This record gives sequence, structure tokens and C-alpha cells, in this order.
Amino acid sequence: MIPTITAFRQSPDRGRGLARDMRVRWALEEVGQPYDVRLVSFSDMKQPAHLALHPFGQIPTYEEGALALFESGAIVLHIAEGHAGLLPDDANGRARAISWMFAALNTVEPPLVERGMAALLERDKPWYEARLPLLDDRAHKPLGQLSARLGDAEWLDGAFTAGDLLMAGVLFRAKGSGILDGYPNLADYVARAEARPAFRRAFDAQRAVFTAASGG
Amino acid sequence: MIPTITAFRQSPDRGRGLARDMRVRWALEEVGQPYDVRLVSFSDMKQPAHLALHPFGQIPTYEEGALALFESGAIVLHIAEGHAGLLPDDANGRARAISWMFAALNTVEPPLVERGMAALLERDKPWYEARLPLLDDRAHKPLGQLSARLGDAEWLDGAFTAGDLLMAGVLFRAKGSGILDGYPNLADYVARAEARPAFRRAFDAQRAVFTAASGG
Repeated sequence: MIPTITAFRQSPDRGRGLARDMRVRWALEEVGQPYDVRLVSFSDMKQPAHLALHPFGQIPTYEEGALALFESGAIVLHIAEGHAGLLPDDANGRARAISWMFAALNTVEPPLVERGMAALLERDKPWYEARLPLLDDRAHKPLGQLSARLGDAEWLDGAFTAGDLLMAGVLFRAKGSGILDGYPNLADYVARAEARPAFRRAFDAQRAVFTAASGG
Repeated sequence: MIPTITAFRQSPDRGRGLARDMRVRWALEEVGQPYDVRLVSFSDMKQPAHLALHPFGQIPTYEEGALALFESGAIVLHIAEGHAGLLPDDANGRARAISWMFAALNTVEPPLVERGMAALLERDKPWYEARLPLLDDRAHKPLGQLSARLGDAEWLDGAFTAGDLLMAGVLFRAKGSGILDGYPNLADYVARAEARPAFRRAFDAQRAVFTAASGG
């Protein structure tokens, strides 16, 4: 059965792969699972039909027969559990990979989102400059710890896992802000992730939505 | 095998159950799994021995033989997968419960933490009052959506799951701020969670750490 995911009809990032459908597309590409995409407008996302799929009115969603899921982390875990390639075979390695999945979304991402939202919504406020060191400190703390743990390893815990997919996906979204500049090993880690053929296919697929919509 | 978790030696919340070991204790109590606790000081948490268990130097951790996990969400999922009682038996219901776990930690909790951190660290700043509406809006949006979805149901999707445990755990941490006051059904949801015998046992166990440390 071919699953269907949702993605933005009008890409707010102009196809730069920053929307959260990117992670799900990437996971599907890693495991070789074809998928359909249903594009939704910002207006669609506020309608009862979409809220029935996603209580928080966001993308992506994931539908597979009678199953409907939301939250990119949960969708990536579902894909990883149903196919080989994104979780280790041994139970302990699998549980550790899931620790990294939650760490990406609950420890590393929130301060990066907070910093990004301030840059987007509060840049013209009188307090923006004064708050920047606080936002930077909050984002740098987990990045420094992540960099220390990664060291010169290729991935976080042996072979590439869904934990790396979400962690590199979170860092990929933030790298444009320059926050990774002080962490060469994290920048290299993201570059290794971006070089994976599955990442490229997922990136090109989401970019094609923007290109088609803009007629370019 | 009896797992060992870590918790704060000096409870920053004076035993009010706001530290993230509460969620893990609660999950262990729900499934009837005894556990040991190793208390760590803030100084211990910066040492290599603790960082080897938790790359981000936080609590809780979870050790079970050769397995070491971090991130409360991942630990709760590991407990739920190894015992009956926290995930539905059917595969679709199980995947949906995991969607709620990620939603609790990645959608509902971050704006609540952001608002709580501002109240803690920026209350004396000249911009604090001016930013409050922005922080409130960001926290209220998912709470309103969650309230709409829950309606008058007892739990989020049928019987109590690990998704409810994390969602109610997130809301329990925030209720002292008054942010739930406009959502009677969410306040009732948290009250139902707090009334569970497993919640009470977990709460009392973490409170006993504070009571013992304060000699009271």
C-alpha cells in the first residue's frame, strides 16, 4: 500500500527543504518506499478535514489505509519500524537510536526554533539585539554537547539511523542561520547527510513542488 | 532486572514533581516495574561519567544491564514497549499513541517551556511585559487545538496510553502558571491523570527525595 503524506502547496521557504515533510520524504527514500503527496494550502490546514488528520493543523501527515499519523518524529519512527535500514537490528541499539530521535526533537530543536522565530518575528523589536546572547546561549549549549559527543565519528552511534536522520534534519534547517559555524564536525555531519542519495531525492521532490508552483 | 534511573539530588522545584524523572517514574509505576534511583548533583551531571550516559548532561537516564538511555520520551517509549499497559495492542492504535507522545514533547511542550523560561530568567528585563502576549499566543495555540480535539473524552484516543502520560505530564508541569485556566477540559484531563494511583506513587517517591534532603 502506497502511503500518502501532506506537504505545503505554497512552500514558505521557496523549496529549500526546511518544511517538516522533508524528514518524512527522506525516511521514505532511505527505505525505498514510494509515496504519494497531497498538497495543502494554509487555508486547507485550518479545515475540519485536515484537523481530523492533524489536531495541530500542521504538515506533514501520513495516511496508510485506515491509519492516520501526525508529527514528523512519530511518522519517521513508524516508517523505520516497518522497513529495514533506519533502526539497528539489536534491541539495545534500536532503543538508543530512539533516544537520539527524541533528543533531536525535544532537546536540540526547540532552542533553534526559538532563535529562528525571534529572528523572523522580533527582528524589528527594540529588545531583539539585547536578547540575542540569551537565545544564542540556549541554542549553543546542546550544540556544543552534541559536537563533543559526535567527535570525529561519522554518525551518532555506529551506522546511520533514524536518530541521525532527525538530528541531521534539525541541524540542516538551522545551518542557514550560521549557528553551526563554530562546529566543523557538525557541519561535516550535515554535509554527509545531505550527500546521501535518499536525501537528494527527497530534497529534489520537495523542490519540484516549488518549481512547479512558481512556473519556473 | 531492576532498571536504575537518575534524578536530581537537590530538587530545584522542592519536590513538586516538575523534573523530568517524574514521567519515567510514573511510566514504571503504571506497568508495575520496580526501579532503583541514583541521585545526582548538578556537579555530577557535568562529569564525564554522567555525560557518557546523557550527552546533554540532564536527568533522567535509564540503565538496564548493558543498555543506557536518555530523553524521557525515549525512556517512556522503551518502558511502554517492554510491558503491557501503556500502548494499545493493535498496531494502528500503537502508532497513534506514539504520535501523541511526539506531539506532547515537540508541539505542546516547547512553547510552554519558552514561556516558563522567560518568566524565570527575563522577568526583570525591560521587555518582559511587552513580550508576554507573544509568548502567550505561542503557548495557547496548541493548547486550544488540544482542547478542541480532546473535547469531553477521558483520554486522547480511547484508553490511557503513553501518549496521555506524556501529554498530561507536560500540562501538569505548566498548570502552576495558570495557563490552563481557560481550558476546563484540559484541567480535568490533568486532574484525572493526577488521580491515577501510579501517578500518586511516582509523585510521592520523587517528593520523598526532597523531604529527606531537607530533613523534613
